[in-house]
Amino acid sequence: MFRNQYDTDVTTWSPAGRLFQVEYAMEAVKQGSAAIGLRSKTHIVLGCVNKANSELSSHQKKIFKVDDHIGVAIAGLTADGRVLSRYMRNECINYSFTYESPLPVGRLVVQLADKAQVCTQRSWKRPYGVGLLVAGLDESGAHLYYNCPSGNYFEYQAFAIGSRSQAAKTYLERRFESFTDASRDDLVKDALMAIRETLQGETLKSSVCTIAVVGVGEPFHILDQATVQQMIDAFEIVGEQEGPAAAGQEASAEPEPEQGGAAAGEGVAPMDI
Amino acid sequence: MFRNQYDTDVTTWSPAGRLFQVEYAMEAVKQGSAAIGLRSKTHIVLGCVNKANSELSSHQKKIFKVDDHIGVAIAGLTADGRVLSRYMRNECINYSFTYESPLPVGRLVVQLADKAQVCTQRSWKRPYGVGLLVAGLDESGAHLYYNCPSGNYFEYQAFAIGSRSQAAKTYLERRFESFTDASRDDLVKDALMAIRETLQGETLKSSVCTIAVVGVGEPFHILDQATVQQMIDAFEIVGEQEGPAAAGQEASAEPEPEQGGAAAGEGVAPMDI
Amino acid sequence: MFRNQYDTDVTTWSPAGRLFQVEYAMEAVKQGSAAIGLRSKTHIVLGCVNKANSELSSHQKKIFKVDDHIGVAIAGLTADGRVLSRYMRNECINYSFTYESPLPVGRLVVQLADKAQVCTQRSWKRPYGVGLLVAGLDESGAHLYYNCPSGNYFEYQAFAIGSRSQAAKTYLERRFESFTDASRDDLVKDALMAIRETLQGETLKSSVCTIAVVGVGEPFHILDQATVQQMIDAFEIVGEQEGPAAAGQEASAEPEPEQGGAAAGEGVAPMDI
Amino acid sequence: MFRNQYDTDVTTWSPAGRLFQVEYAMEAVKQGSAAIGLRSKTHIVLGCVNKANSELSSHQKKIFKVDDHIGVAIAGLTADGRVLSRYMRNECINYSFTYESPLPVGRLVVQLADKAQVCTQRSWKRPYGVGLLVAGLDESGAHLYYNCPSGNYFEYQAFAIGSRSQAAKTYLERRFESFTDASRDDLVKDALMAIRETLQGETLKSSVCTIAVVGVGEPFHILDQATVQQMIDAFEIVGEQEGPAAAGQEASAEPEPEQGGAAAGEGVAPMDI
Amino acid sequence: MFRNQYDTDVTTWSPAGRLFQVEYAMEAVKQGSAAIGLRSKTHIVLGCVNKANSELSSHQKKIFKVDDHIGVAIAGLTADGRVLSRYMRNECINYSFTYESPLPVGRLVVQLADKAQVCTQRSWKRPYGVGLLVAGLDESGAHLYYNCPSGNYFEYQAFAIGSRSQAAKTYLERRFESFTDASRDDLVKDALMAIRETLQGETLKSSVCTIAVVGVGEPFHILDQATVQQMIDAFEIVGEQEGPAAAGQEASAEPEPEQGGAAAGEGVAPMDI
Amino acid sequence: MFRNQYDTDVTTWSPAGRLFQVEYAMEAVKQGSAAIGLRSKTHIVLGCVNKANSELSSHQKKIFKVDDHIGVAIAGLTADGRVLSRYMRNECINYSFTYESPLPVGRLVVQLADKAQVCTQRSWKRPYGVGLLVAGLDESGAHLYYNCPSGNYFEYQAFAIGSRSQAAKTYLERRFESFTDASRDDLVKDALMAIRETLQGETLKSSVCTIAVVGVGEPFHILDQATVQQMIDAFEIVGEQEGPAAAGQEASAEPEPEQGGAAAGEGVAPMDI
Amino acid sequence: MFRNQYDTDVTTWSPAGRLFQVEYAMEAVKQGSAAIGLRSKTHIVLGCVNKANSELSSHQKKIFKVDDHIGVAIAGLTADGRVLSRYMRNECINYSFTYESPLPVGRLVVQLADKAQVCTQRSWKRPYGVGLLVAGLDESGAHLYYNCPSGNYFEYQAFAIGSRSQAAKTYLERRFESFTDASRDDLVKDALMAIRETLQGETLKSSVCTIAVVGVGEPFHILDQATVQQMIDAFEIVGEQEGPAAAGQEASAEPEPEQGGAAAGEGVAPMDI
Repeated sequence: MFRNQYDTDVTTWSPAGRLFQVEYAMEAVKQGSAAIGLRSKTHIVLGCVNKANSELSSHQKKIFKVDDHIGVAIAGLTADGRVLSRYMRNECINYSFTYESPLPVGRLVVQLADKAQVCTQRSWKRPYGVGLLVAGLDESGAHLYYNCPSGNYFEYQAFAIGSRSQAAKTYLERRFESFTDASRDDLVKDALMAIRETLQGETLKSSVCTIAVVGVGEPFHILDQATVQQMIDAFEIVGEQEGPAAAGQEASAEPEPEQGGAAAGEGVAPMDI
Repeated sequence: MFRNQYDTDVTTWSPAGRLFQVEYAMEAVKQGSAAIGLRSKTHIVLGCVNKANSELSSHQKKIFKVDDHIGVAIAGLTADGRVLSRYMRNECINYSFTYESPLPVGRLVVQLADKAQVCTQRSWKRPYGVGLLVAGLDESGAHLYYNCPSGNYFEYQAFAIGSRSQAAKTYLERRFESFTDASRDDLVKDALMAIRETLQGETLKSSVCTIAVVGVGEPFHILDQATVQQMIDAFEIVGEQEGPAAAGQEASAEPEPEQGGAAAGEGVAPMDI
Repeated sequence: MFRNQYDTDVTTWSPAGRLFQVEYAMEAVKQGSAAIGLRSKTHIVLGCVNKANSELSSHQKKIFKVDDHIGVAIAGLTADGRVLSRYMRNECINYSFTYESPLPVGRLVVQLADKAQVCTQRSWKRPYGVGLLVAGLDESGAHLYYNCPSGNYFEYQAFAIGSRSQAAKTYLERRFESFTDASRDDLVKDALMAIRETLQGETLKSSVCTIAVVGVGEPFHILDQATVQQMIDAFEIVGEQEGPAAAGQEASAEPEPEQGGAAAGEGVAPMDI
Repeated sequence: MFRNQYDTDVTTWSPAGRLFQVEYAMEAVKQGSAAIGLRSKTHIVLGCVNKANSELSSHQKKIFKVDDHIGVAIAGLTADGRVLSRYMRNECINYSFTYESPLPVGRLVVQLADKAQVCTQRSWKRPYGVGLLVAGLDESGAHLYYNCPSGNYFEYQAFAIGSRSQAAKTYLERRFESFTDASRDDLVKDALMAIRETLQGETLKSSVCTIAVVGVGEPFHILDQATVQQMIDAFEIVGEQEGPAAAGQEASAEPEPEQGGAAAGEGVAPMDI
Repeated sequence: MFRNQYDTDVTTWSPAGRLFQVEYAMEAVKQGSAAIGLRSKTHIVLGCVNKANSELSSHQKKIFKVDDHIGVAIAGLTADGRVLSRYMRNECINYSFTYESPLPVGRLVVQLADKAQVCTQRSWKRPYGVGLLVAGLDESGAHLYYNCPSGNYFEYQAFAIGSRSQAAKTYLERRFESFTDASRDDLVKDALMAIRETLQGETLKSSVCTIAVVGVGEPFHILDQATVQQMIDAFEIVGEQEGPAAAGQEASAEPEPEQGGAAAGEGVAPMDI
Repeated sequence: MFRNQYDTDVTTWSPAGRLFQVEYAMEAVKQGSAAIGLRSKTHIVLGCVNKANSELSSHQKKIFKVDDHIGVAIAGLTADGRVLSRYMRNECINYSFTYESPLPVGRLVVQLADKAQVCTQRSWKRPYGVGLLVAGLDESGAHLYYNCPSGNYFEYQAFAIGSRSQAAKTYLERRFESFTDASRDDLVKDALMAIRETLQGETLKSSVCTIAVVGVGEPFHILDQATVQQMIDAFEIVGEQEGPAAAGQEASAEPEPEQGGAAAGEGVAPMDI
Repeated sequence: MFRNQYDTDVTTWSPAGRLFQVEYAMEAVKQGSAAIGLRSKTHIVLGCVNKANSELSSHQKKIFKVDDHIGVAIAGLTADGRVLSRYMRNECINYSFTYESPLPVGRLVVQLADKAQVCTQRSWKRPYGVGLLVAGLDESGAHLYYNCPSGNYFEYQAFAIGSRSQAAKTYLERRFESFTDASRDDLVKDALMAIRETLQGETLKSSVCTIAVVGVGEPFHILDQATVQQMIDAFEIVGEQEGPAAAGQEASAEPEPEQGGAAAGEGVAPMDI
C-alpha cells in the first residue's frame, strides 16, 4: 500500500473517495488473534484462539459476556474492545432497568456501530481498532453480527475474523448450510473445527482456545476448559495430520497475514492485538 | 486528478473556487453499489443491488424505512448512511408527535441537506460519504430526491447513483416519460430493468436486488424476496442475452468504475461502500 | 494564479495584504450558473439560468423567496446559498413577529454580510462560496443588493453574477439608465434579454430560465413557466441569430469561464455550483 | 518582502521581534481607496474617494455615522470596517443609555483599539484588515484619531490613509498649521484639495468623493452630492492641469501602490478593499 | 525501527494497522528500572531495583501502597506512575466509603486500563509511559496484574518488567509452577532471586532493592531494609559467583537494553524512568 | 540568529532548554523607542523619547498613569502595553475599593508578571511584545520595576529599555550611586541627561521627550511640555556638541539596533513599537 | 543532540520511548544560576548564587518563602518558578485554614509534582522550565526535595542544581555524611562552601549569594547580607587560591555548561534563567 498525503487524518478523503485511516484501522483487526462465530436457529457459539503472552500469564481475554442473552468475541486492539464491551454492558443494564426486558440484539449492534461511526468523523479521535462478533438471542431468534471499525455491521450465519481467519472462513463456507438446524453440540464441534483451521498445524487443545455459548434456555457463558477438552476428545478433533497440509496451502494463498502470524508467534505482539 | 495543497482540508478553497474534499466525498458515492429510484404520480419505487460480503452473511442493507410515508436508498459509506437515516427517523417521529401529521418530504430533505452542509464548513469534521435517494409521499404527491455529500439536493423523476449507475441512468432516460402515469407494477418492472443494467451480465435474481415501494394506500415497505422473484419471472426479465454486450459497451465507456467493481467482486470491499 | 504559502488558511494574510482564501471563495461564485437582477422605482426582477443535472431531474432551484417583500437569487455553492436563505427567512419571521412590520431590506443585507464576515476571520471555518442578489421592497423603495463571500455588500441598479455574467453586465450597462422609470413588464423583458446574453447561442426558452418579481402591490413570487414563455413570445426574444456572434466574441474575451461552461455542459458539475 | 517561516501565524514572533501577520494586515489598509480627515478647533471633516464597482452600482460606502457626535472613514477591508463600525455604534448606544451623556471619543477609540489587539494575540483569529479615521466632538473638543490593525491608535490634526494617500499627506503637511483656526468651509475645501491629490489627474467631481462633517452645533452627517459639487465649483477646485505632474511625481515616488491602483482601476478589486 | 509519517500522532493508524505512538510509549516501560511480581494462593510479593540518582538522594520510590489490600510496582515514567497510583488510591477510598468493603482488584485494574485507553484515542493527549504491576488480595484470592500503556491488562502468576527484565522472566518461568503453594517466605526468596537476575553481576544488597508483600492477614506493606537484608543473608543469596556468567549471557542475548542499562548506569537517566 | 524548527511555537523547548518565541518577543522591546526610569528615596522619574509618526500627529503615548501612586513607561508593542496598563488600572481600582488602601507596587508587579507568564505557556497565545518600567510609591518606599515579556520582573535603582538604551544605561551606571539621596529636580535632570544619550546627536527639546514624576506628596503625573523645556533650559542640557561622538561610538558598539533606528527614522515604523 | 521529528511536541513519544520536550525543559534547569540545599536532622539550608542583571538592579530573587515551615530555591525559568511558588503558597494557606495545622512537606511536593506532570501530557501546554529545591520542616522532621520539570521529585540529604552545580555536588558528596548531626551554623558553612564551588574563581562575598534557613524553632527566613558576610568572614571562606584550579578542572570536565556560563557572564542571559 503506497503512502500518500491523504492517509494520516481520519477526516481527510482521498481523491478516489476513500478514508485511509478507517481502512488502516481495519488492518488492526486482521492482526489480532482469530475469533469465530456461528449460529443455529436456537444457539450461537463464539470461539477464539487464546494467545498467552508467556507461560506466566493467563491468556488475554477475548470473549466477554455483555448480558445473559448477549456476548462478544473480539479481534484487534484489546483495550478498544474492552471499552466497547463495557459500553454494551451499560446499555443493556440501562435498557432492562427502564423497560424490564432485555435489549434486542440488533438495536445494541446499531448503537455500537453508531459509536464507531462518530470516531471516523472527528479530527481529534481515531477509529476503533477492533472487530466484534456479537452473539445474541432475543425474541426474534439467534443472531450473529460483525461490527467493524468503519461503523458498519453485518449479520452472519457464521463468520471468522482476525489473523489466519481465511482458513476458518473457508471451512465455515463449506459447512454453513447445515448450521441452521444443527444441535448445540454440533455447533460447538464446528466451532472447534473452524478454530483448528487457524492454528497452522498446532494441535487443538482446550488450552489454546475459548468457546462460549448462548442459546434457548442457556444464558451466555464461557465453557470451562475441562468441558472443552472433553468435547475435543469426544469429537476426536486433532490437527496433526491435517496441519502441515493446511498450513502449506494457506501459506501460498495469503502470504501477508502469514508474516503477521509469524511475528505474533515469536513473542508478545507489540500491542496485544 | 492531480494532487495539490488545497485538497486535504474541507475548509480550504482551491484557487479556482473548488472544495476538493467535498468532491472527493462525492467519489465515495460513485464507488458504492448501485441504487435507483423512480416515481409515478402515485408511487415511488427504490431499488438497489445487494452486495453480500460472503456467502455466510446476509447482504448489506442499503434501503431503510424512515416513516410510513418515507424511505431511503443509499450508495457510499453505509455507516454514514445509517446515521443519517436514524436522524431522518427521529425528525419524522418528533414532527408527527408535535403536529400530529406526517413530516412533508421536501422539508425533511432540506433538513438533511443542511446537516450535510455543516460538515463541509468545519475544519474538525468531514463531509458525509454517502448519497441518499429519498422516496416519499405526502399531500403534495409522490417525490424522489437525491441528497448529495455537498449539502445539495435535487428532485428527480427517476435517478440512479453508485457504481455502474450510468447504464441505469441511460435506461431511465429512455423511459422516464412514461413513468408519471405508470402503474405501480410497471414502475417495479422498470426498476428491475434499470437494476439489471448495472449488473454487468450477471443474471437478475431476487437475491441480487432489493426493491421497496411507497405509494397511495401503500406504506413504505421492502418487497420480500419471493415477490420480487415472481415479478422477475412474470416480466420475463433476464439478463444473460444482453449482458455481454452491455458489459462490453460499458467497459469501454467508463473503465475506472470497472476497476472498483472488480475489486469489489474479489472479496470484501475495504469499507463496504 | 501562482501558489503560495499564504493561501490555504482563511486567517492568514499575504505579504501584500490579501486574504487569498476569501478571493478563492469568490471564484466559486464565478463558476455558478448566471443570475441577474434589475430594478425600477417600484419593481425588482430577478432572473437566473436553469441548470438541470439531467433530463430526469427538475432544475436546481436558484431563486428563493425570503418573505413577501424579499427574494434572493444565488450563484455559486447551492448548499451554502440555501443555508443563508433559511437564515434570512428566520430573521424576517422573527422581526415581523416582534415589530409587526416587515424587516427593512438594507438591515437584512447587513446582517447577512456580517454573518459572512465572521467566516472570514475564524481558522476553523471557511468563507461561504456563494453570491446572493437580494431583491426587496420596503418603505424606502425598491432595492437590489449583491452580497459577496467577503462579507461585503453593494447596492445596484442592475447586476449579473455567475458564469458568463460579463455579457449580461454589458447589456445591463447599455440599458440601465432607462430602468428607474421602466414598467414592470419592460423590466422583465430586459431581464430576459440579459439572461439570453449568458446563453452562448442557445435559444431562450422558458425552460432554461427562471424569473421572479417583487414590486408595489406584488409580493415576491416566481413567474410560472407558461407566463415566462408568453413573455418571450410577446417580446419576440430569440437568440439564434445573435448567438454565434455573441459566443465567438465572448470566447475570445474570457476563455476560462468557457471551460467551466463546457465542463458543466458535459454532465453533472462536481459540486453543482 | 522575502518569505519566511515566521509570517503565516499571527501568534508567531520573528527572530527580530516582529509580528509579520500584523504588518501584512496593515498592507490591506494601504490598498483600500484613500480616506482623509482634518480638524479645526470646532469641526472635523472626513473625506474619501468613492470607488464604484461598475456604473450599475452605487459606490461602496466608506464613511459611517457612529453617533451624533462621532463618525468614521475606513480604508481596507470594507467588511471588517463595517463590523467595527457596528461595534462602535453599539458602544455609543449603551453608554448614552447608561450615563445619559455621549461616549467620549477617546474612550471609544481605546475600546476599538483593544478589540483589534485581541485579534493579534489569538492563533484562531486574524488581525482586522482595515484602518479607521475616527472623527468626534466631545466636551474636550474636536478629535481625529487613526485606529490601525495592530491595535494602536494615534491622534492627528489631519491624516490620510489608503492607496495614494502619500500625496494627500504631503498636501496636509504643507497646510496643517492653519487648520486649528480654520472655518468649517475652509476645512471642507482643504479636504477636497487633499482628496484631489489622490486622484491621479482625474477631475474632482462630487461623484468621485464623499465628504462628512461633525462640529459644534452640527451633528455628524454626510454632505449630499449637490452641496459637495457646489463647493467644488465655488472653490474652483479642478485637477486637470496639475494632474499629470502630480501623477508623474508620485509614480516615481512610490511605484508599488501605483500597481495596486492600476489593478483597481481595471475593474472590481478582488476584495473591495 | 524505521521512521515514518504515521508515528508522531497517537490518533494516526499506520497502513499496517498499528499505533506507533502507543508502541513507543511501551518502550518507555522497557527503559525503567526493573520491577517484578509473583504470587502464591495467599500472598503476592512485589519487588523492584532501587535506582538512586546519587549518593545524596534516597532512591526513587517505585512501589506504592494503594490500599490495605492493594499495592503497585511501576517501571517507566515515574511521574505518570505516581499520578496513576493516586487515581487508584482515590478509587479505593471512594469505593470503600460507598460500599463499606474493599474495591475488588480486578475491577480497579479495569478502571485503570480504561483510563489508559482514553489517552490512546485523543489527539491532544499522549499514552502514559509507565507499566504497573498491581498486586492485590480480595475475596476471589491473590491477584497479580500487569497494566500496560496501551490500555491492556493481563493477569500473571509472576512477571517482570523494565530494563533487563528478560533475565528475571527466564528465572520466573523456570520456577513458577511451585509458586501457587509456596509459603510467604519462599515467595520473597524467589522475588529476591529474580531481582538478582537483573543486576548484571552486582551484589544483591538490601539497599539496591525494595520488597513489598500483601497476603492473607498481612496488609500491603514495604519490608524495611533490615528485614530484607536478613532474608538475603538467611537465604544466602549472593550474586558474585553467578553474576559474570549471567551478565555475559544476557549481553549477547539482548544487546539493545544493555545500552539503555549502560546509560542508566552512568548517571541520572534523563527522565528517571 | 540562525533559524530552526524550535522557534515558531511558544510551547516548544529547544534542545538547549530555550524558548525562542519568548526571546523573540524580547527583541520587540529592543526595537521600541527608549524609555528610562530612576528613583531616589522619595521620588521616581520616568522618561521616554517621543516618536511622532508625522508632523500631523501628536506623538505616540508611551507613559501611562495607573493610579495616583503608580505609573508605567513602555517600550515595544504599544497596543500590548496599553492593554496591560488597563489591566493594572483595573487591579488598582478593585484593590482600593476592597481594602480602602492603595495596592502595593510589588504586588501589582507580580500580578502583571504572572499574566505575562501565562502567555508563554499556551499554544494558542503569544508572549506580550512589550517591556514595562513600573514606577510606584507605597508604604515601603519608592520602587522602580522592569517587567519583561518572559514573565520576569526586576527591581532597579535606574534602568533604560528600548532602542539605543545602552547609552542611557551607561550614563545611569556612572551616576546611580548619587540617586538615592538626590532631590526630585536632580532626578529629573538625570532623566533628561539619560534620554539625551539615546538621541544620537539630536538636540534635546521638550517636544522629543516625555517626563513623569511620582513621589512623596506628589501623585503620578506627566510634566507639561513647558515645564520640561524650562528644566532643559535651566540645566543647560544640550546635545549638539556631544552628539556626533556619542553616535559614532554607539554605531560601532551595536550596529544592529542602529539599523532599526534608521528605519524608524525614515517614516512610520511598521507596528509602532 | 541530533534533531528529529519527535522533539517538537510534548505529547509525542520518540521510537525509543523518550519525551524529548520534557528533556529539553530539563536543560533549562541546567542553565539557570546554581542553587543548593542541605539538611541536618533539625535544619535545612538553601543557598543560591545571585545573578544581578546589572549594577543598577537588585539581583533576581531565586529563593522564596512558601510558609513558616517551607521555602524553595529555584534554578531555570524564574517566571515559571515564581508561578509555582505562588501555587505552593496558596496550597499552604488553604490547608492551614482548613485543618489548622501546617501542610506536610511531602504532601505539598507531590501536589507540585502532579501539577508539573499535567504539563507533560497536554499538546497545548509546555513542561515547566524550572527545578525547585523544596526545604521544609514538619512533624516527620527536616526535608529537602528536588522537583523537576518531568513531574518527578526526589528526597535528598543535600543537592545542587543549575549551572556549574556539578562542582557543588562533588563537594556535597564528600561531606554529606556529617550533615545529619551538623549544627545549624555548620550547615550554613557547608552551604557557603558549596556555593563557592560554583563561582569559578570568583571571591565569595555576601553580595553574590543568598542563604535561607528553616529549622526547629526557626521559621523559614532569608539571612540578611550582613549576617552572611559575618559568617563568610568567621569561617574564613575565600575562593581565590582554589579558584583557578577548580575552574580549570571544571572546564575540562564539562565544557558545554561552561559555554552557557560564559554567555551568562557577558550580560543579561536571554530569559533570566
